[in-house]
Parts: sequence; structure tokens; C-alpha cells
Amino acid sequence: MTSSHSTPHARSSWKVPASIVAKRTSNPIRAIVDHIKVKPNPEKSMISLALGDPTLFGNFKIHQSCTDAVAKQLHSYKANGYPPSTGYMASRQAIADRFTRPDAPLTGQDIIITSGCSGALDMCIGVLCNEGDNILLPRPGFSLYQTLADSKGIEVRYYDLLPEKNWEMDLKQLESLIDERTATVVMNNPSNPCGSVFSKQHLLDFLAVCDKHHLPAIADEIYCDLVFSGQEFFPLASLTTTVPVLSVGGLAKKYLVPGWRVGWVSIHDRNNIFASEVREGLNSLSQLILGSNSLIQAALPDILNHTDEAFYHDTRVELEALAKLSTDILSKVPGLKVIVPQGAMYVMIAINIAEFKDIPNDIIFTEKLLGEESVMCLPGSVFQCPNFIRIVFTSPPEVLRDAYQRMAEFCARHHV
Amino acid sequence: MTSSHSTPHARSSWKVPASIVAKRTSNPIRAIVDHIKVKPNPEKSMISLALGDPTLFGNFKIHQSCTDAVAKQLHSYKANGYPPSTGYMASRQAIADRFTRPDAPLTGQDIIITSGCSGALDMCIGVLCNEGDNILLPRPGFSLYQTLADSKGIEVRYYDLLPEKNWEMDLKQLESLIDERTATVVMNNPSNPCGSVFSKQHLLDFLAVCDKHHLPAIADEIYCDLVFSGQEFFPLASLTTTVPVLSVGGLAKKYLVPGWRVGWVSIHDRNNIFASEVREGLNSLSQLILGSNSLIQAALPDILNHTDEAFYHDTRVELEALAKLSTDILSKVPGLKVIVPQGAMYVMIAINIAEFKDIPNDIIFTEKLLGEESVMCLPGSVFQCPNFIRIVFTSPPEVLRDAYQRMAEFCARHHV
Repeated sequence: MTSSHSTPHARSSWKVPASIVAKRTSNPIRAIVDHIKVKPNPEKSMISLALGDPTLFGNFKIHQSCTDAVAKQLHSYKANGYPPSTGYMASRQAIADRFTRPDAPLTGQDIIITSGCSGALDMCIGVLCNEGDNILLPRPGFSLYQTLADSKGIEVRYYDLLPEKNWEMDLKQLESLIDERTATVVMNNPSNPCGSVFSKQHLLDFLAVCDKHHLPAIADEIYCDLVFSGQEFFPLASLTTTVPVLSVGGLAKKYLVPGWRVGWVSIHDRNNIFASEVREGLNSLSQLILGSNSLIQAALPDILNHTDEAFYHDTRVELEALAKLSTDILSKVPGLKVIVPQGAMYVMIAINIAEFKDIPNDIIFTEKLLGEESVMCLPGSVFQCPNFIRIVFTSPPEVLRDAYQRMAEFCARHHV
Repeated sequence: MTSSHSTPHARSSWKVPASIVAKRTSNPIRAIVDHIKVKPNPEKSMISLALGDPTLFGNFKIHQSCTDAVAKQLHSYKANGYPPSTGYMASRQAIADRFTRPDAPLTGQDIIITSGCSGALDMCIGVLCNEGDNILLPRPGFSLYQTLADSKGIEVRYYDLLPEKNWEMDLKQLESLIDERTATVVMNNPSNPCGSVFSKQHLLDFLAVCDKHHLPAIADEIYCDLVFSGQEFFPLASLTTTVPVLSVGGLAKKYLVPGWRVGWVSIHDRNNIFASEVREGLNSLSQLILGSNSLIQAALPDILNHTDEAFYHDTRVELEALAKLSTDILSKVPGLKVIVPQGAMYVMIAINIAEFKDIPNDIIFTEKLLGEESVMCLPGSVFQCPNFIRIVFTSPPEVLRDAYQRMAEFCARHHV
């Protein structure tokens, strides 16, 4: 082919690099956990308290309504085709109907169904932030926020959550991070990994900062309503008439089906600030991979409407009992300090490093615990929070007791 | 809060633009179709031949094995948790086992399960191309390629498919587009929108160009095996030992379940060219939204292994009969020229504009056809191919006959 002479600049070897985007996309959990080369103690059964997946042990069962709703769609043969990129309107409407409140009204048009809550976060961060902008993220916080921001070339600025104040946001420090390139702030309530639940007043104080700096907020509320006695969950959007809020949620945690990958964005925009560009932008982004599974989407109205209130109640009660069990046992272990969880399915535990003779940090703590006791939990470093560990307390009580007993023995062995 | 004085650059108003990425993400189909303001003729029933979704009319039914496989997983309560970001290994292995060939070997490690074939394309384009690179795309071609490239800031360069040669690639022109910033070329076989199937020799000629310029290829083979009598489908990767190929596929078309959103990337890399960076890059990108629905993923081994060969055969036979019906009727209509389809579920029809008195282009043809006859098809312009129309021939024969009769009357009315 003679035209090849006109293309002298084509590649001259089979060197195929990965893109810059792929290279800057990384998972902090994997980056740290993959470097843990220690093997579990072969003489002890392995117990993982690391994965935020309530389905692993069979003690948290999904409600029959969910199974029935999906089976109905499956056998209808009518929900196998392409849904619209933003989701079936009936399903969007069902989500809106379920979560609308007088102080945070929603219509079907305000909902975009996504490929899991991860997909919702991807879309919200993607529509608000440009490469070179900065985004405010909680520390400690869910590592996917940083993965998404890094992937998009957005500068991450961490605002601190304060363990001594039940993980409230350090709003003064948060505010000091804001500049003209700050595109948005991600707020997570109830919190992964902290298990904290923000008070109404604290959320109002946060909104005052957003309002002052005209900062739209992304509210990760995937653990909404998973709060324990004495706590109340306030949707961020219900406390403001001025700050536009993209709230993300999904079936994963509340309905105990994280693998189903159905999440959503709720657009709260009382003053039509998102109307000029952001709504259209979300629609555009929804067309890239066309949303989530049609069967589950079609089942959403039944799932949201036919799940017994007792199911939600029972899940909360069971989680709270496991949280209490965890707190009761672990708070008696010398060297550890439990920050008592208020919701979700996590507890963060401070390691008083000074009290251990041969454990200089949380990563070594995690490694040795795994090697000696076959108990795996995540080091706080994966959440940008060194010298803490995070425990997922969704295992059955007897498993938790066994794990905590081993942890107590481990700590006693290494304690000064 | 006094710290606000240290942040004088924060935004001073509630102007919240959408990101550059969101703004440059657009769907060419919507951009054109949304501007068609004509209403269907209220006196005629609406027939849409526009959507590439074989489930719409109920004539193409999914195989019982698919329903059974998903029901089994649903009722097991064991497939509700998070799959690994690249998919369940057993499912990846099942895909590898199904599609491996001596001349294009695959193991489970070579498969990444994605959120539909769209997700697979997103990942392949994303791992190979940087912003500012260029990518070669087929014209006419599936519009999502451009949507993904535009979204990522990749320059699109179209190579032509030649209708007079059964839509073979114009390889001379393709080669002339290659320069040092050409990151990859997307090849689609069997083709949407063309319904064409490439010969072995043509694919070898294409691979020779890739080889000469060290250009990795993305093979969109979602319609694999959907080919008609006398045609044979050759996986691109089976014809080369030198060119690394990312092949994308999924359940959507072959199993008639596009809404299930389960696709995959198959990494064909005989010389370990992708081993240094691209494989890791694909793994990294898979962590952004965590893949596809766990129930369907878990059902994949049963779906791939228990679906009767007769199902594939029957689907092909049925599609071929509809293709023939379409060709037989429409090739007799003055002013139209059918490019006979060889596979998939599409036919492209050239409009001889010069023979029409009041139809200057394909978009007006589409508009008037809708307004007068309530028949909707897509103008070729949405595939970068003006003065063609694309018809999806998956409707039942009686519906197609009705639509084609109306098209014939329409053409007769407007013919010179």
C-alpha cells in the first residue's frame, strides 16, 4: 500500500502503554492490602472483618419481597431489553416517591438510576469537576472517592473527621481548603468507615459553609436510615433551601444486595442552579454505559413498596446488637480505643501505638494480627487514617466473639 | 469562622457549570433524533424500526436456560454480594472456555466482565487512548464509539466502509489516517449498522495494516456468530499472532438480553505486549464502578454451557428470514438501494436522493416517513453516513411487511 509513505510518524515498535487515566486510577485498599505478604496462621480458621459486604455470612438475609420482585420480572420476559440511559421512568418515580419529603421534594425527573452507588458517585464527581479542579473529601473516608478523583485528574483535598467528636467534620479546616478551583465537597452520612451519624446542627453548620462559598455538595447517603437508638438520620438536602445537593443512594446496604449494582443519583435543586447545565450533563454521562440491570430496575417499584417495615427495623436492631457486642468487648482491650459507632456497619478503633512494644503502625498491626490470629481487618491507612483499624461487624455474633477474643490475646501479647 | 478570610478566591455566586467532560459527552443519535419535531401520523399505528433491541416485540424469546440460570442464583441467596471488580473467576473461566480456540487461546485471566458491552468498550478505549491521541473508527459505525472518544477528549478519525464492497473497510484510506498519535483502531464485525460480515482475507488485510504500524486493535464482536448462510465469522484475534487484540462481547445480542448489562473484554495478547501496562490498566479501570450484576454474572456458566445449540441456530435462521424478507421487498422500491445484510440484525439502505422530488437528505426522509406513515427508522447521518437509512429487522414479519408497504407507498409518492 503506497499510502504508507505518507504516514512516516506511525509507531515503530510494539510498545503499548496504558493511558494516563488508567495509570492514575488506583485503589488505595489494594495498594496497601496487596503488599501484606503475611499468610494467615494455618492453625486458626480465617476470619475476615475487612469487607463491607453484609451478605458474606448468611446472617443478613435479603427480604423475600426483593427475591419475589426480581423473579416476577425474570419470568415476565418483559424486562430484558434496554432501559433508557437514566432508567425506567416507573422505577425513577418509585425512588422519588419513596424518598421525597416536603423539605426535600423529589420527582421522577430528579432521579437517575446508575450502575451501583459507585456509578452514581462517578457521575456526580464527573459532572461537577474538571481536571485540575479540587474536591474536598472526608478523612477517614471511603477510598473510592479518591480513586474516582485521581482517575479524573481532580486534586484531592482532605478535610478531617474528628474522632474525639464522634467523627464530626472539622468545618474550620474544611473551609480553609476551599479556593476558586474547589468544585464540590463529598459528605458521607452515616459514614463508612466511621459508623458515625451527624446531628442536625452539625449538618446545618456544614451547609452554612457550602452556602457561604457557593459550593454544591455530594451527599453519600447509601447508609441512610441505618442508624442506631437515639440517633436520627437527616438527609442533607432536607436541611437546606439554598445549597444544591446531589445525593447518592442505592439498594446495596439497606436491602443487603451490594452485588446487584443498582444505585441512583437524587438531584435536589430547589433554586434551579443545576438546571442550566448539570442536569443535562448527568443525562449525557448516563449514556456512556447505559445504567444498570433491567431486571432489578424493573423490580425496584416492588422492592421499594413491598418490603416490610419490619425488615428495615430488624436489620437496624441486629446491626445495633453487633455494634454493641463489638464495643463491649473491644473497649476492654488494653491498647485499643473504640469510637462507639452510631450507625452503618463499621467501627473504627484507635490503636495506642505507644502502648505496643513491637507494633509501630496500623499496617504492621494488621499484618501481625493476620499472621498470628488469622483475623483480617483493614488498616486505617487505607482510609487516610493511620493508627486506626476498621472492623466490619456484620459477621454472626459467635464469629465476632471468636475474632475479638483472638484480638484481645494478640494485643495482650504485644502490649508493653 | 475566621478562616474564611484566608479563602478569598472561593466562588462568589451560585453558578455551577457542568464539567468539560460532561459537555463533550453527547449521543449523535439523540442529537439528531431529538430534533425531529414531526409527530407520527395519528391515523396510522406507529412502527419503530429504529431500536437495536431484539426483545421489543416478543418474537425473539430468550432461552429457558438463561431464565433458569438466573432464577437458580436468585433463589440460592449466594450471589447477592460484591463480585471482584473483574468478575467472578468461575464466570470469567466459563467465558474463556466458551470462546477459546487453538488459534486464539483464552484463560480466565484474559477475561474482564463489564457493565454491558458498552462498559467493555469504555474500558478498552480508556486504557489505550490518552486525551489528544486519535482513534480510528468505522464510518458508518455504532455511535457509542464516538460518544466515548469525545467524552475522553480523543480525536476521532473515521475510516470509510464501502457499500459497494459489502461494507468492507477502505484500508488504504484507513492507513492514511494513522500517525504517531493514533492509539488504536476499532473494528466491528459483524457490523452495526451495516449488517456486514468480513471475509477472512479482508480481516488478514486489516491485520497487516495494524501489524505494519504496530497498532493494537479493538474488535467489537458483540454480534459474533450472528451470520447468515454462506458467511463465516472469524474472530479477529484468531487470524493474527502478532497484533494484540482487545475483543469485546456480551450476552446482549446473542442471548437476546441487552438490558442485563453483562459484557466482557477478552484480552488476546500472544506476545505479552499488553502484559507490562495494559492488563494492569484494565484491572485498575474495572475498580471504578465494580462491574455488572452479581446474579447474572453467577449465572453465566450455566447460560454459556446449558443453552441449546438449537437456540443459536434458530435465532440465526429467524434473523436470516427477516433479512431476506426485508431485502426482497425493499429492493423493489424505486429510489432505494438495499445493501444486502450478511449478519447481525440491521440493513442499511441507500436513498437515491436525486430520484426524489422533495427529499433533500436522509434526515428529511426519516422525518417525512414518520410524519406520513408513522414508520420510524434512523437516518444514516447518526452513523456518519448521510443519505442512507438503517432498519432493524427484528420485528415480526407481519409488522415488517406493513412497514415496508408503507415505505413503498411513501417512496412512490415522493419519487420523481
